[in-house]
Amino acid sequence: MTILVENLDYVVDKKLNVYKNVDILIKKEYENENENITKIIIGKNLVKKENLNKNDLKIINGKNKCAMPGLTNTHTHIPMTLLRGIADDMILQNWLNEKIWPNEAKLTEEDVYYGSLLGCLEMLRFGITSFNEMYFFSEEIMNATKQIGLKGVIGFPIIDFGTPESKDLNKLLKMAENFIKKHKNEKIVKPAIAPHAPYTCSKETYIKCKEIADEYNILLHTHISETRYEVVEMENNIKMRPVEYLENIGVLDSNVIGAHLVWITKDEVKKLARHNVKVSHCPGSNMKLASGGVMPLVEMLNEGVNVSIGTDGPASNNNLDILEEMKITALLHKAHRWDPTVGDVDTVLNMVFNSEILGFENNDIVLLDINSPHLRPVNNIKSNIVYSANGNDVDTVIVNGEVLLKNKKFIFGDKFLNDVYKKIDKIIKEKFNIGEN
Amino acid sequence: MTILVENLDYVVDKKLNVYKNVDILIKKEYENENENITKIIIGKNLVKKENLNKNDLKIINGKNKCAMPGLTNTHTHIPMTLLRGIADDMILQNWLNEKIWPNEAKLTEEDVYYGSLLGCLEMLRFGITSFNEMYFFSEEIMNATKQIGLKGVIGFPIIDFGTPESKDLNKLLKMAENFIKKHKNEKIVKPAIAPHAPYTCSKETYIKCKEIADEYNILLHTHISETRYEVVEMENNIKMRPVEYLENIGVLDSNVIGAHLVWITKDEVKKLARHNVKVSHCPGSNMKLASGGVMPLVEMLNEGVNVSIGTDGPASNNNLDILEEMKITALLHKAHRWDPTVGDVDTVLNMVFNSEILGFENNDIVLLDINSPHLRPVNNIKSNIVYSANGNDVDTVIVNGEVLLKNKKFIFGDKFLNDVYKKIDKIIKEKFNIGEN
Repeated sequence: MTILVENLDYVVDKKLNVYKNVDILIKKEYENENENITKIIIGKNLVKKENLNKNDLKIINGKNKCAMPGLTNTHTHIPMTLLRGIADDMILQNWLNEKIWPNEAKLTEEDVYYGSLLGCLEMLRFGITSFNEMYFFSEEIMNATKQIGLKGVIGFPIIDFGTPESKDLNKLLKMAENFIKKHKNEKIVKPAIAPHAPYTCSKETYIKCKEIADEYNILLHTHISETRYEVVEMENNIKMRPVEYLENIGVLDSNVIGAHLVWITKDEVKKLARHNVKVSHCPGSNMKLASGGVMPLVEMLNEGVNVSIGTDGPASNNNLDILEEMKITALLHKAHRWDPTVGDVDTVLNMVFNSEILGFENNDIVLLDINSPHLRPVNNIKSNIVYSANGNDVDTVIVNGEVLLKNKKFIFGDKFLNDVYKKIDKIIKEKFNIGEN
Repeated sequence: MTILVENLDYVVDKKLNVYKNVDILIKKEYENENENITKIIIGKNLVKKENLNKNDLKIINGKNKCAMPGLTNTHTHIPMTLLRGIADDMILQNWLNEKIWPNEAKLTEEDVYYGSLLGCLEMLRFGITSFNEMYFFSEEIMNATKQIGLKGVIGFPIIDFGTPESKDLNKLLKMAENFIKKHKNEKIVKPAIAPHAPYTCSKETYIKCKEIADEYNILLHTHISETRYEVVEMENNIKMRPVEYLENIGVLDSNVIGAHLVWITKDEVKKLARHNVKVSHCPGSNMKLASGGVMPLVEMLNEGVNVSIGTDGPASNNNLDILEEMKITALLHKAHRWDPTVGDVDTVLNMVFNSEILGFENNDIVLLDINSPHLRPVNNIKSNIVYSANGNDVDTVIVNGEVLLKNKKFIFGDKFLNDVYKKIDKIIKEKFNIGEN
């Protein structure tokens, strides 16, 4: 059904144009099980111009609302919602060895499914309509993503010493390929291959993953240069830095999306640009884990690298709020460079209205409730979005022409939500020894 | 009326103790126009223990809620809500000269009153029950604060070259003294004297302000070492750094609250500690304006300085959300020191449950709605507050035993709110040439 959002106070479109007092039409022009083509039209008198009958339309009141495109979260591990807050304020290696890995080892497929549902609900609540994921039991994450109705690139993770899906690397690669074959023709969700990082995957593993990515024309999602430690180790061992190394073994390409890229040189930035590598910047996680370096945003943008924003997993952030992450991005780069002109409003908005980086057309609409003291007055609506708003200001989310959140309520109903919460409380009580008593 | 919050999932008290499945009693033990003594009791079976009749109580359902003390915002300029978003991403001097000062000069007493109402509403919405303010037309800010019902220290600003209240310094000092005399016996709001900064106030002005602070036993609220520029200027001119200078002229004392303190040495930290100077840390504003330095939080806490958190004005933040500022504080110090163990959860909570720094007992209660995907599961409630929550998660706010926000709605009603918004839209349209068309 075509949707008309009437009498919007503001619209910011994906080219960052600002409109006042307009309507939006969200028209499904073609639809089948796996695909739909949804068109967004912004303007006045759209019912007349498009020759429509108002009775055929689903009408949403846009008063005191600002519409914007769906937000994109380009690096996350959503089942880690289960581990939210389980360990903070720790040195990375202790955090991983003592808290994250031992607890992750206890998770079953069902646990990952429920953690994924929670992550999808959180992202939907915060206006994220597309995301780029990497976590084990990918099939369960795929199921949860489809059930909630988000656009997701679900990366099947590969680590040489194995994951909870299998300890056998060859078996894991086979499973990944099967996962990709099974889902490669879907349009609203997409499979990807996700070799974890150059320090956990061999050269042969990366090359095999790249072959799979090329064969099925999918994304290769990987961590690159998140910590100084891994860079120093690699330099000591093979006299190359991670980006140089990945170029050297022939992995860098426009179907690669790298997360973090915190400890890189200007020369590595140029390599990323030359190979059209896509980048997910995760400022909140890098700051919280005290990675030390700061991703060279200005240099990347100057070289033309396609940079987007990721929250990373909720155990190292500890939420999936891209609106919050937008502000953190702006603040971090200004502070880092002693220059308030960098990380400006338009730069940051371009990074999050960027579902195209994942291969999804951005035809989703998010309505922000601007009838709240912290979003008044509107001297500059784009500034209010980046610097004043947070995820909870999202009021309505329309993904692929379907209303999934309305008046800050999920369309799935309270029972569904409560069942998910209950199930998750049970998981953390049984698995992590944290619970009601 | 005594309030009973029943069946709370969690309570975090001001000593950071965590309770599960308890109730809270909020008892007014004494009350007159200017003062009330409100007692908070946490536990089970409180009605019986305190020998009360449930019919005499106002009952609030605490299910799916976490209670915590009221939050404190120790440095702000709330009428600058009017200027929110009017200029971002600019060099500080241009921002002030081209955007802030020319627009501030247009503001009337009535404008400041409405801007203050909006600021108080925003803080209340975000669980801030006490704040430390500095802006001209202080009487209007005082009126707005009392009208909304927050605890405020309202500083009368002094600048040698004048403020919109008067261009005559002596007249300004006289007005400040009258303001202080008028309000000095009030308990829920307090007057303060606020010499702007060492680069805008002479030695004589600071000494006079300190005399007034001492005479009336009130706070002296001032900016100190916000930018490198002012430090370098002072070192060039008088061979002293700002904290040294203020010590030298006899201003530093336990009734001084200094904001920012970004560019200071370890020796200056020791001076602050020795004189029991109170400090307001404003990380979001410092990052946004690219002040460059980072307040030495770890050194301050090691020396025993009483440090709290301020949002600064909404033109340089651009909101008054202390929950957001808590996360920014934690992230900034971890990133700055390459050490994830600093700016930990307890350190940050202590900084914001700190109304005592302003001389207000913290007997206010904030209920967070934890029935939201991003606050699930609760592996660690204090972590969820610092790292996962934002201001909009505040559900209910009880200040001085009065419920001022309930179920995320102000008790003042929609009409009051809409009238404030309308009035403010009119102000920005007329004054700043920004409006509906």
